[in-house]
Amino acid sequence: MSQTRVVLDESEIPTHWYNIVADLNNPPAPSLAPDGQPVSPEQMLTIFPEPVLEQEMSTTRWIPIPDEVRKVYALWRPSPLCRAERLEQLLGTPAKIFYKYEGVSPAGSHKPNSAVPQAWLNKIAGTKRLVTETGAGQWGSSLSFAGQMFGLPVRIYMVKVSYGQKPYRRLMMQTWGGEVLASPSNLTKAGRDILERDPGNQGSLGIAISEAVEEAASDPGTKYALGSVLNHVLLHQTIIGLEAKKQFEKFGEYPDMIFAPCGGGCNFAGVAFPYLGDAAAGDKRAQKIRMVAVEPESCPTLTKGVYAYDYGDATGYTPLMKMYTLGHDFMPPGIHAGGLRYHGDSPLVSQLYHEKLIEAVAVPQTSTFEAGVMFARAEGIIPAPESAHAIRACIDEALRCKQSGEPKTLFFNLSGHGHFDMAAYESYFAGKLEDFEYPTEAIQASLARLPKVA
Amino acid sequence: MSQTRVVLDESEIPTHWYNIVADLNNPPAPSLAPDGQPVSPEQMLTIFPEPVLEQEMSTTRWIPIPDEVRKVYALWRPSPLCRAERLEQLLGTPAKIFYKYEGVSPAGSHKPNSAVPQAWLNKIAGTKRLVTETGAGQWGSSLSFAGQMFGLPVRIYMVKVSYGQKPYRRLMMQTWGGEVLASPSNLTKAGRDILERDPGNQGSLGIAISEAVEEAASDPGTKYALGSVLNHVLLHQTIIGLEAKKQFEKFGEYPDMIFAPCGGGCNFAGVAFPYLGDAAAGDKRAQKIRMVAVEPESCPTLTKGVYAYDYGDATGYTPLMKMYTLGHDFMPPGIHAGGLRYHGDSPLVSQLYHEKLIEAVAVPQTSTFEAGVMFARAEGIIPAPESAHAIRACIDEALRCKQSGEPKTLFFNLSGHGHFDMAAYESYFAGKLEDFEYPTEAIQASLARLPKVA
Repeated sequence: MSQTRVVLDESEIPTHWYNIVADLNNPPAPSLAPDGQPVSPEQMLTIFPEPVLEQEMSTTRWIPIPDEVRKVYALWRPSPLCRAERLEQLLGTPAKIFYKYEGVSPAGSHKPNSAVPQAWLNKIAGTKRLVTETGAGQWGSSLSFAGQMFGLPVRIYMVKVSYGQKPYRRLMMQTWGGEVLASPSNLTKAGRDILERDPGNQGSLGIAISEAVEEAASDPGTKYALGSVLNHVLLHQTIIGLEAKKQFEKFGEYPDMIFAPCGGGCNFAGVAFPYLGDAAAGDKRAQKIRMVAVEPESCPTLTKGVYAYDYGDATGYTPLMKMYTLGHDFMPPGIHAGGLRYHGDSPLVSQLYHEKLIEAVAVPQTSTFEAGVMFARAEGIIPAPESAHAIRACIDEALRCKQSGEPKTLFFNLSGHGHFDMAAYESYFAGKLEDFEYPTEAIQASLARLPKVA
Repeated sequence: MSQTRVVLDESEIPTHWYNIVADLNNPPAPSLAPDGQPVSPEQMLTIFPEPVLEQEMSTTRWIPIPDEVRKVYALWRPSPLCRAERLEQLLGTPAKIFYKYEGVSPAGSHKPNSAVPQAWLNKIAGTKRLVTETGAGQWGSSLSFAGQMFGLPVRIYMVKVSYGQKPYRRLMMQTWGGEVLASPSNLTKAGRDILERDPGNQGSLGIAISEAVEEAASDPGTKYALGSVLNHVLLHQTIIGLEAKKQFEKFGEYPDMIFAPCGGGCNFAGVAFPYLGDAAAGDKRAQKIRMVAVEPESCPTLTKGVYAYDYGDATGYTPLMKMYTLGHDFMPPGIHAGGLRYHGDSPLVSQLYHEKLIEAVAVPQTSTFEAGVMFARAEGIIPAPESAHAIRACIDEALRCKQSGEPKTLFFNLSGHGHFDMAAYESYFAGKLEDFEYPTEAIQASLARLPKVA
């Protein structure tokens, strides 16, 4: 039998994360305060603890993973690297398809890779409580789990419409001891203001961020945790690619192309950055890898946005970041890949895309689910809708290989399972899913409202 | 850091299943037809294909696992053996706690261990379609997955009340291409008869079995597959214990006690039988292991039932089997561990219990969920309610060790995750779960209706 999976022993969990900031061609653009000046560390320290901020600003290439974090990682890591041979046969492609499966984590996705170190760094900094926001619940459940591992209470502002529609994700957070509030809530000024104007408001990720940040800023013992976009989050996720490199060696294979879903960017960064690091160090094979960030056609940040300073949230509460954006008040349609409905993208991923070191592609919703079902029937695992974006792009390439006869080695990040997304699959089977290709004029309109930066 | 998990390479997937029938002290009692005579192979062949029946009747100690089955097993096997060190610390026990995690399978439980070989054996026997029944959906989803692996269509009669209440399990089956019907249906005489008398009938496992068996018996190309109870199902599950033995060696540990949930018996058999085999072969350490089947207090088959001939289903359609039973028309209350709501038990497990080679204990529902939440908060994984029964019994023993100071090595089978059981956790958190200890008179009443066997 040919090899299906490569698992590593827990002693092979990487000892360091890889920080791509050390290898960028150009220094990253600073985040700016509303006055146009770079945000000061003091401003950041109101919501983040010092050890997190240190990682956020670090230019050191290798950052040690604390033993306490590796010990929690060992509950599910190293995650398996698998060959999708049944999918190859189904497609009749000469390409080899590999995937890294992050759905083995307790929360079912790659998100705990950053939630655990964030909880630990807060714990050692003396943080008494963490607050965050969550939409569909992937990040909120991961942070609840991580807080529980270190005895750190976690409060989650969950977008009200999801709070009602996704009770099982909410219950998952509660099982791990997380306190879940429907946002907008009465606990913050941001929430109260909105409820006063609009008592029936169903919430948004932007509002939930505002509530969590306001609470963190108003209490020295409370800090805020973000699940993507920022440098330290991407740093933590590099454990995925670092493990994959060891596993590909054991397979005796090397990827020609890498695919990952891209919303805030941490999923893509996790799998791609370690190979970009090899490329920066002069590795010729790594320099040839094509790395593809896959986004939904309904929220085409990299493929149809602009590279400009914009707010990280919908309401303009955060610092301005230089990134690809559709405009901070761009409202993506309610597709089922909630994790990819973000108007912007990580500044690091954006810079790499701007410098043409990586590629991006946008895929429509219906054919994304078609790819997800195809994968489930071939390989067993039912993928999260976000992950299915990478599968779609990977299958499209495998079919191109079938035409051209090229035996490429394709690699995608299967970032999570779809156990809490079966309602989305139901819509797909019922033929109720829609494809949204945003009219260029709508994007132009929100881009016209970008903040002016000197 | 001390070791948290032992994973094995896929080359270490066992090559043979262990058949305990070869090592029993007494030959198993035959199944009987309604006339009191042993059921003939010809009768069995109307619903099972020959290769399955061969395994069912086999007395050979080691039965080879076909390469095609091992190849599918490799999608998730070998499953990890983990040490629950955080749980030990939380309990303050000197005991060491280990668990085998079967929730890594695509369907999220140990059930695919038998679904895959059953699908394969049917495939090579020329079966055109498989039919089965499912209650909560664990078995139905596993067989849908397994059928899909070999291109074998699967039809599942799903108890109507579950069909409505558990749409996500149903969707999981459909994602893998399974055809799911609400039972009672109009497709069988059994279903039509019931609907004629009672159009609003919400179904039961007994009715669903009757429908599936009727369909298999009426079409030569269609065969029936059962998810527990029978010898061949228990045989397939021994892969769990066989892997665990290798993994304990790598840990440098050996279990003093083994705990597993026990409904139909395949979960318990999977983890315990290989050690019983060692004991039968004269291994002194294995002879000292205490093996505990854990059942719900609300359905106390081993602890309060009798060892007698009874029907395998509620309606008296199946052959009579010698087993512990509460009476075939015993109706357990609607607890959340649907997989443990069975009036009988596997004949093999029953015989071992009768011969006092294994033990049994019954635990109440509320404290079972308490144990499940404790485990989730310590170790991350949210257990299925069935699995939480083993956790409860294991924690109780660990607490006894705390009193006595004994550093026992405890081992339980974590047979599945609870991602599709969050509604049950919600009831627990809301204080809505009830404990049912069945009044002895009610059990006496159903036992009084046991069939008379000469």
